[in-house]
Amino acid sequence: MSILVVGSVALDTVKTPFGEVTDALGGAAVYFSAAASYFSPINLVGVVGTDFDENSLSFLKPRNVDLRGLEKAEGKTFRWGGTYGDDLNSRDTDFTHLNVFQEFKPVIPDEYKQSDFIFLANIAPELQLDVLNQVTSPKLVALDTMNFWIEGSLDALKQVLPKVDILIINDSEVKQLAEESNLVKGARIIQNMGPKVIIIKKGEHGALMVSEDFSFFAAPAYPLEDLCDPTGAGDTFAGGFIGYLAKCGNPTNADYRQALIYGSTLSSFCVEKFSLDKLVDLSQEEIAERFNQFWQMTKFEPAK
Amino acid sequence: MSILVVGSVALDTVKTPFGEVTDALGGAAVYFSAAASYFSPINLVGVVGTDFDENSLSFLKPRNVDLRGLEKAEGKTFRWGGTYGDDLNSRDTDFTHLNVFQEFKPVIPDEYKQSDFIFLANIAPELQLDVLNQVTSPKLVALDTMNFWIEGSLDALKQVLPKVDILIINDSEVKQLAEESNLVKGARIIQNMGPKVIIIKKGEHGALMVSEDFSFFAAPAYPLEDLCDPTGAGDTFAGGFIGYLAKCGNPTNADYRQALIYGSTLSSFCVEKFSLDKLVDLSQEEIAERFNQFWQMTKFEPAK
Repeated sequence: MSILVVGSVALDTVKTPFGEVTDALGGAAVYFSAAASYFSPINLVGVVGTDFDENSLSFLKPRNVDLRGLEKAEGKTFRWGGTYGDDLNSRDTDFTHLNVFQEFKPVIPDEYKQSDFIFLANIAPELQLDVLNQVTSPKLVALDTMNFWIEGSLDALKQVLPKVDILIINDSEVKQLAEESNLVKGARIIQNMGPKVIIIKKGEHGALMVSEDFSFFAAPAYPLEDLCDPTGAGDTFAGGFIGYLAKCGNPTNADYRQALIYGSTLSSFCVEKFSLDKLVDLSQEEIAERFNQFWQMTKFEPAK
Repeated sequence: MSILVVGSVALDTVKTPFGEVTDALGGAAVYFSAAASYFSPINLVGVVGTDFDENSLSFLKPRNVDLRGLEKAEGKTFRWGGTYGDDLNSRDTDFTHLNVFQEFKPVIPDEYKQSDFIFLANIAPELQLDVLNQVTSPKLVALDTMNFWIEGSLDALKQVLPKVDILIINDSEVKQLAEESNLVKGARIIQNMGPKVIIIKKGEHGALMVSEDFSFFAAPAYPLEDLCDPTGAGDTFAGGFIGYLAKCGNPTNADYRQALIYGSTLSSFCVEKFSLDKLVDLSQEEIAERFNQFWQMTKFEPAK
């Protein structure tokens, strides 16, 4: 089934202990699409400036990523710069130039309005709400957000959450949004704000899914010796996860678990190279092989 | 098979957001024994002062914990005091009174010298080495240590590590001992110091086992809504883990995985109440039930 993604398309300038890149392809909608398109067709909505080289997205076309919703506006493309610390767990933002993204008002093309699945990447909750007002009864809506909106646009965020099926959020954001230091209690509080399923991203510690019936599924991160650049790992995770759910169409509980491991699988590839370099041409065999390494790495027998 | 444990017996004064206890039973050897004795007989070596009430350990006797190696010395019992922060992930040490533990020189009773498994809890590496010199060809040796010894007694620690089969250590200590910010590379460096298996404890994020062939097994922590007191969770984890290995006798790779989940199971009980209150009278059914919740919480199907 098709997925509508609305979010940033960016040019990132990133420094890590392992190198640096300038004006490299990035943005939540791009990372998401690169991962999700291994499983399902994508309809992308975003904005770039006149300086953007569309050829950089050409690898997505054979994977059924529809770019008709990518607006080209007068001005420069959104640029972000960041520097990661030695262990890649801390980062400083060097600059954020919103440029054309500042005035971004997502317009959903008619051809996209009946998308089955919707992923609202990390943009202002007011815009996320506006997107939902433009589409026709989607099957499933997933949303990402961040501390910036929890602090500055909490009312709007609380208006959009009841319309959301799946919230994908990191552990510190759970605690912040729920105003609760216990992660499990926090997830329960957030479920009462609307989303049926909470996916808690914990970076190098993996992810935890809290289902509608308040049961849990925990997945580790893949233990990598050579991480290069964590930028986009969260959106890539969301892409693998939602992409696989859309492939299933009517996902069962077991499908949700598989989907979470596909998200973890894709994000483990993402961080191995700068920008989207590793997501350009993965084979289905590579994806399945790493997926099964997750399986090997977690399986054990029940108690007798 | 029998397990020799050498470590502290203490009286802890602990404050958490959920209450406080004064001079409550604690110490690495006690937490370890309480957990391990659900699986295997224990020979305990430690020291207490004349102020210690031995009745507080009487719950261990029906579980085959031999206390003949618990020395009673002139003076006061080791006391530790600590206060935990709101999310229980940070703690301040209020005081450490070593008392009789200051002069502790472990003497292994003749009846203990042929113990099959040995757990060297977190004490000075020189003493850990001394214990190994007193025993007769154990089947398996496991060791815990901490930042204090990595900083202050690194040479002695590097002398004992080649004699150790399993190192049980937390994630920050791996990075410190290996002088490497990547956890996986760090584990590889430490394997080259001697231990075949590295068990990395990550607190609320679970545990990672790195096996002799450098394969991984990752386990989550149990998602608890009501944590009370994290004191002793690491030693309880070690107790469940080594206790189950000793029960197996000649553990296979699959047994090591089960053992890690038993460690996680026991430590999840430990933190639910203060001191050892929750470890006093668990039933085998309760343990198996929670173990199987770990199984439910992590299982998924391999990729086709």
